[in-house]
Amino acid sequence: MSRDHLYLYDVTLRDGAQTQGVDFSVGDKREIALALDALGIDTIEGGWPGANPGDTEFFETRPVFGHARLAAFGMTKRAGRSISNDPGFGAVVNANADTVTLVGKSWDFQVEVALGIPLSENLESITGSIAAVKEKGREALFDAEHFFDGYKADPAYALSCLKAAADGGADWVVLCDTNGGSMPADVYRIVSEVKARFPEMRLGIHAHNDTEQAVAVSLEAVRAGVRQVQGTLNGLGERCGNANLCAILPTLILKEPFASLVETSISAEQLKTLTRASRMLDEILNRAPARHAAYVGPSAFAHKGGLHSSAMLKDTRTYEHVPPESVGNARKILVSDQAGKSNLLARLAAAGIDVDAKDPRLTKLLDDVKQREHLGYTFDGAEASFELLARRALGEVPEFFEVDSFRVIVEKRHNAMGELTTVSEATVRVRVDGETLYNVDVGHGPVDALSNALRKDLGKYSGLLADLSLTDYKVRILTAGTEAITRVMVESKDGKGTRFSTVGVSENIVDASFEALIDAIYLKLLRDGAKP
Amino acid sequence: MSRDHLYLYDVTLRDGAQTQGVDFSVGDKREIALALDALGIDTIEGGWPGANPGDTEFFETRPVFGHARLAAFGMTKRAGRSISNDPGFGAVVNANADTVTLVGKSWDFQVEVALGIPLSENLESITGSIAAVKEKGREALFDAEHFFDGYKADPAYALSCLKAAADGGADWVVLCDTNGGSMPADVYRIVSEVKARFPEMRLGIHAHNDTEQAVAVSLEAVRAGVRQVQGTLNGLGERCGNANLCAILPTLILKEPFASLVETSISAEQLKTLTRASRMLDEILNRAPARHAAYVGPSAFAHKGGLHSSAMLKDTRTYEHVPPESVGNARKILVSDQAGKSNLLARLAAAGIDVDAKDPRLTKLLDDVKQREHLGYTFDGAEASFELLARRALGEVPEFFEVDSFRVIVEKRHNAMGELTTVSEATVRVRVDGETLYNVDVGHGPVDALSNALRKDLGKYSGLLADLSLTDYKVRILTAGTEAITRVMVESKDGKGTRFSTVGVSENIVDASFEALIDAIYLKLLRDGAKP
Repeated sequence: MSRDHLYLYDVTLRDGAQTQGVDFSVGDKREIALALDALGIDTIEGGWPGANPGDTEFFETRPVFGHARLAAFGMTKRAGRSISNDPGFGAVVNANADTVTLVGKSWDFQVEVALGIPLSENLESITGSIAAVKEKGREALFDAEHFFDGYKADPAYALSCLKAAADGGADWVVLCDTNGGSMPADVYRIVSEVKARFPEMRLGIHAHNDTEQAVAVSLEAVRAGVRQVQGTLNGLGERCGNANLCAILPTLILKEPFASLVETSISAEQLKTLTRASRMLDEILNRAPARHAAYVGPSAFAHKGGLHSSAMLKDTRTYEHVPPESVGNARKILVSDQAGKSNLLARLAAAGIDVDAKDPRLTKLLDDVKQREHLGYTFDGAEASFELLARRALGEVPEFFEVDSFRVIVEKRHNAMGELTTVSEATVRVRVDGETLYNVDVGHGPVDALSNALRKDLGKYSGLLADLSLTDYKVRILTAGTEAITRVMVESKDGKGTRFSTVGVSENIVDASFEALIDAIYLKLLRDGAKP
Repeated sequence: MSRDHLYLYDVTLRDGAQTQGVDFSVGDKREIALALDALGIDTIEGGWPGANPGDTEFFETRPVFGHARLAAFGMTKRAGRSISNDPGFGAVVNANADTVTLVGKSWDFQVEVALGIPLSENLESITGSIAAVKEKGREALFDAEHFFDGYKADPAYALSCLKAAADGGADWVVLCDTNGGSMPADVYRIVSEVKARFPEMRLGIHAHNDTEQAVAVSLEAVRAGVRQVQGTLNGLGERCGNANLCAILPTLILKEPFASLVETSISAEQLKTLTRASRMLDEILNRAPARHAAYVGPSAFAHKGGLHSSAMLKDTRTYEHVPPESVGNARKILVSDQAGKSNLLARLAAAGIDVDAKDPRLTKLLDDVKQREHLGYTFDGAEASFELLARRALGEVPEFFEVDSFRVIVEKRHNAMGELTTVSEATVRVRVDGETLYNVDVGHGPVDALSNALRKDLGKYSGLLADLSLTDYKVRILTAGTEAITRVMVESKDGKGTRFSTVGVSENIVDASFEALIDAIYLKLLRDGAKP
């Protein structure tokens, strides 16, 4: 039996940007979009062109995708205006996009209360707006806002809104549970009724998580016949979030009845990058990953109960519903050194470090890694610090130089003009080749000053460090027991454009930064073949 | 039509305690149990007596409940042992509890692989173990582990396990989706088939969240006829967690078809304490609340999009599926560059600031907000800084004190013992009531030292600041043009447990932190009615 294609439509860059605490830069948007394209998502909604300068710029400088279409989001034309006289609408329809998605009302209550226009005018607006998109030669989607609430209130009117979109030539009609209050069983029933009424209409689902059922709502809609699912990475989105693609995709691809019912553009290999895509978004948002997230969470395949762990050793199916590798995640059991070691070997291979599985130094390295992770280090996003730690354990890292002491001063005071200014200054005492060097420099802040002072004069190494620059700096406060500690991640770039990340942990942010900075300098010297 | 009673069974203290990073003290358990009792939960599973000293002590000194029963958890007797010769089993059956819940196998694969005993012996063990509980005069529950996987593999054997429990006299048979991999529709079908086969059996559901569908699975099981739901506060639990009672309860009580189908012991007044119960657990675990949690999350009723905000002003039903007060939560309207004046007005109203829509000062405030957002500030996670900005625009914020200057020193050096240590020290010069105060203090890092020095002596305000503490600190590096700037968010808590966030932006991290700290102090003084 041939399976229907199920289209995947991501709204992380639009609905996700509506989330409290989220404000993507244009660069963030580009990075996320390219990761979604690489994952195999069919359509990426980039934002609302014309609504704010960032969204407008994103479309003007749109990234080049290998697979995905780029969609511009907007709303049907304003009440009481002609299409040619609605500049907001024009900005959406004319955006540099493959697809235009227009949201419109389908709940009589909303038309009358929120829009305040006659029901018939809303229908005309839908048809006319969609037709305007089609005239531009774009794929047209209609997002039927509040569809399920609307259908419950007045099924005839809600259906007439869908028909109005179809009359305008819509390629897809997306049923939105905007308030997130619908039950999966209701959605199954209503989608089935819509399918029966409009058998040829291509339907999508757009669910929100206000009852923690957006995943179930989306999957029930697929069972009932929708062939497009909208959602976001990590369920990002306003209020309780949108339907979580990181939970929906593996179920669609790996589990019945979905695996037999539909196929997606995501290959088994691409599915293995899902955990990485999820973590990338957390990194951009500077958030710790949600530990217990389905499939991709750091604890999703962690086993603590002794009962479970011993059964797991007999057969992993006893407490795992899918293999963790299938989504690029990993099993965590604190029983077997073997599991840790194979993991370590895989990480070493990924870092280009060739070492025999029986090498006794691996045991010490494994202990080092575990000890550091216990202290709050993470090597997942700091591959350069991991490489350094591994090469140290293998005796490959000489002592290039040693920092005896440093002092950083940040002072805010009135300057000679009577203005309040803040000055940062760092002093470093460092020994290179038996000689003691004193460096002092200023910077935009304490870490910048320290970085400048460190690299100002490192004797014979100075030349190799001239092209090293800091490109990103992230700070997270972790709680280990009752003590708050600070983890700093520093991203550096060399002259060839290679970026690498290092990590430092301390209760003192300057100290943690210092550690990450030193790792970055050491790695650069090591890779450039410096000799002490 | 009379509604069936739906029994609520909490496993936070047992399944929840299996979570990575969770380690409840006996006092924690008591506090959580009493809160669950006050909420109206019918049965509280206290732990596994005999499995560890904490669980044993909890039962020995069991709290007195107003409504709830206390359940002891354990497993059916060990293979190859008689009941009288199984001390672990004895500790459970004889515990000071009203109810005893025994977990046992119902999947042939598990019996053969994990237990390694004949299928018939497992049935005898179930019947005999349950009968032993009934002989002690306790309510007896049988948790059928892996029931849904077992039913799919061998329905006859899975059903015979349920019958074995009934033969022993079980009061309830609980169907467990132990691996969390079952789909809601499958659970609905299988529960319906079990009901048809054993119409008199009282059935429960115990679901895990491995596909992010534990809530939907539990609710579908209720629709199909189970009358006991097991879950945890905040969905705490191993791997991806258990079914989240904080999401399930409001849906059962407030929404159809459940409100017409079943009744619970939780009154409308008790439901209003749900958000507080959820936050209490986070406090005990020293975790920030999950922002986007359904019903109880701090962002569950937060609105950011301008489209939404203006509609919300007209009728809250436009973007709310239930009233936030019904679960003890509150509406939040967020300010962001996505929104204009209607958003601003709604946000002011939410902050308790009454101002006329035509007030000319609003235009200036909106300009201020936009200007600051352009510089990198964000107010949607820093409502306290927004309140301060707004009250300043309205002339409601006096100058409590002024900081003339500060100096922060971070020094890493060898101490007298020859060890490398890092010391942070801050000096602050502040004017209060015309008097100049010089404060100096140390801290774990530069920001901690600055915070300590700032609050060390603020003259007449010092008393009001004694209960102010820092609870979280976040840093993000933003790129505005070619300049990297630092945004700091500080979360503070007052003596009543109220948390609020403030924001600071500067190219210097210490300066940005200083600004956020000053905002926090000002807000505390303002809310406490301090007078300059």
